[in-house]
Amino acid sequence: MSDNNLVISVDAMGGDNSPRVVVEGIHIAHKKNPDINFILFGDEVKVAEEMKRFPKLKDFCRVVHTDEYVHNEDKPSQVIRNKNTSMYMAIDAVRRGDAAAVISAGNTGALMAISKMILKTIQKIHRPAICTNIPHKNGMCVMLDLGANTECSAVNLAEFAIIGNILARHSLEIERPRIALLNIGAEEMKGREEIHQAAKMIKNTHLDLNFIGYIEPHQISEGYADVIVSDGFTGNIALKTMEGTAKLVSGLLKSSIKNSVLAKLGLPFLLPVIWNMKKTMDPRKYNGAMFVGLNGLSVKSHGGTDAIGYSYAIDNASKLVRQNFVQTIREEVEHVDLDELSQEILYDVY
Amino acid sequence: MSDNNLVISVDAMGGDNSPRVVVEGIHIAHKKNPDINFILFGDEVKVAEEMKRFPKLKDFCRVVHTDEYVHNEDKPSQVIRNKNTSMYMAIDAVRRGDAAAVISAGNTGALMAISKMILKTIQKIHRPAICTNIPHKNGMCVMLDLGANTECSAVNLAEFAIIGNILARHSLEIERPRIALLNIGAEEMKGREEIHQAAKMIKNTHLDLNFIGYIEPHQISEGYADVIVSDGFTGNIALKTMEGTAKLVSGLLKSSIKNSVLAKLGLPFLLPVIWNMKKTMDPRKYNGAMFVGLNGLSVKSHGGTDAIGYSYAIDNASKLVRQNFVQTIREEVEHVDLDELSQEILYDVY
Repeated sequence: MSDNNLVISVDAMGGDNSPRVVVEGIHIAHKKNPDINFILFGDEVKVAEEMKRFPKLKDFCRVVHTDEYVHNEDKPSQVIRNKNTSMYMAIDAVRRGDAAAVISAGNTGALMAISKMILKTIQKIHRPAICTNIPHKNGMCVMLDLGANTECSAVNLAEFAIIGNILARHSLEIERPRIALLNIGAEEMKGREEIHQAAKMIKNTHLDLNFIGYIEPHQISEGYADVIVSDGFTGNIALKTMEGTAKLVSGLLKSSIKNSVLAKLGLPFLLPVIWNMKKTMDPRKYNGAMFVGLNGLSVKSHGGTDAIGYSYAIDNASKLVRQNFVQTIREEVEHVDLDELSQEILYDVY
Repeated sequence: MSDNNLVISVDAMGGDNSPRVVVEGIHIAHKKNPDINFILFGDEVKVAEEMKRFPKLKDFCRVVHTDEYVHNEDKPSQVIRNKNTSMYMAIDAVRRGDAAAVISAGNTGALMAISKMILKTIQKIHRPAICTNIPHKNGMCVMLDLGANTECSAVNLAEFAIIGNILARHSLEIERPRIALLNIGAEEMKGREEIHQAAKMIKNTHLDLNFIGYIEPHQISEGYADVIVSDGFTGNIALKTMEGTAKLVSGLLKSSIKNSVLAKLGLPFLLPVIWNMKKTMDPRKYNGAMFVGLNGLSVKSHGGTDAIGYSYAIDNASKLVRQNFVQTIREEVEHVDLDELSQEILYDVY
């Protein structure tokens, strides 16, 4: 466990069925990522009990004991003060340089607050963002911000474009990701002022050739772009709308089958269809919201996911860790002065 | 045609297949709405040609000739000056008091710009909103604003709540509509400041008991609320995301069937399911975006819809017209001073 770029720290106590799901998730993820090592923070007795099921785990996992942990109902303002929780210690392992990323299935607000407080934003990045991969008809794209920032300036949006570009390259393995700003129209004057300014700024960075302008929400699922950039309020609205609509349409499919005698008779014919839809839409595949822009990667797994879902969150983090995601951001922002660009664009307007 | 509350003016030349779709749409709508009369603005020869197919139409339709009309590529700033287009004349019929509502399937931007310019907002209403009915798992709800205002103040949002409440009562026939503000969380402090302020204001109006607080986008399709209020940017994002996701999931269903030999064999069993899903999700049923808050109702039909879709837009407008929608808004805002409320809430905070 010498190269900390290949170490992930884990809050073993976060999530609905921890540490069982966490330990089994690591076991599954390790098959795909044999080069990654793990530090697990949590109750050593409970963790050891779960690890007994997978004897090989002790070769690449280290357990650090603590009997305190963050509860779901805890307020972020309270938990940031307690340095002895499994979540705090797992994040702190990244700050101390012992790990390159941290994963927790625990309290989202707490994870974000502690991560932000102790990892701090990368120099020249003003705000962190929440990001996830979402499906479209031909594959996946990266979407950010999904809720870290209720309001964003043009500079924030341009920074998210830079980070999103790296995410798509590292995590989706797209060589030249097409970057778009989420907006309500394709025309230059549609939407909000900060979006127009961000578009002008992005055109003046190294992302110029990859930037395809504005994307409207119904075009996301068509696969028009690989990186979708928005403020956290808009991104969160879009993400939750997707979730609700997908549920509505699948619910409609289910009730239509249920209400049709003919369809019920034909159910055996339908099974491969239902199976394929379930597989493609499986939320476990998209598990793992990444908190990016900090000195270290912080990943939130869904609290109710199972071991397979947890392993996807690890997979995704592993890809980024293996490619030195954080260091790449540092290098790319080194050569772009967005604040200066922002000033230039302002002068341009008036 | 004495009672102008029951007259709808129609831009016979707007839309992809006008005036054919328009005339046939009126024919279909008339069966459900025999008390409504129509004034059609457009090329009298072309309109008369289409009306020949439905001889009864002349009993409740009047045609006013003009040979100019708004093209899809026309800019709103240009068309607002030409008083001789079928669209302008149809809207002007509402201003003159000859009709209570106007319907057009033409250029959206032009319809909104001309409507706003000549109908003007109702006294005490600061901004008009675009509104439509959207489906949820148990029925329909009203959503506004869907794009008229990129940014909104708390006063604007509270006004939309008042208008939305009347819309749900008149158009969806819900006696006590549950009103909610679209937000990214249920907690009081989540989301943007203007939403928090709007919540406080609404609690101080006659809507108090109907107001259920914040709704998150994934709850819309669960049918948690009957009126969903947001600024036009957010509403447009949510609406277009619904559209895209519904298409993605149905596309997935189609390709899953196509790729399964078994499912193809079982297609006859599936037909009622596909038919039921198509029926429920039929976009024609939700046709007709209403431009509300003006002295008269302005309705935009989808440009590419067919006669059935057009008839749904008429149906919806008819319901509102019959119940004196605009007059009801005037009466309800008469007794609420939102500007004053807004001041009080500001003092409350500081």
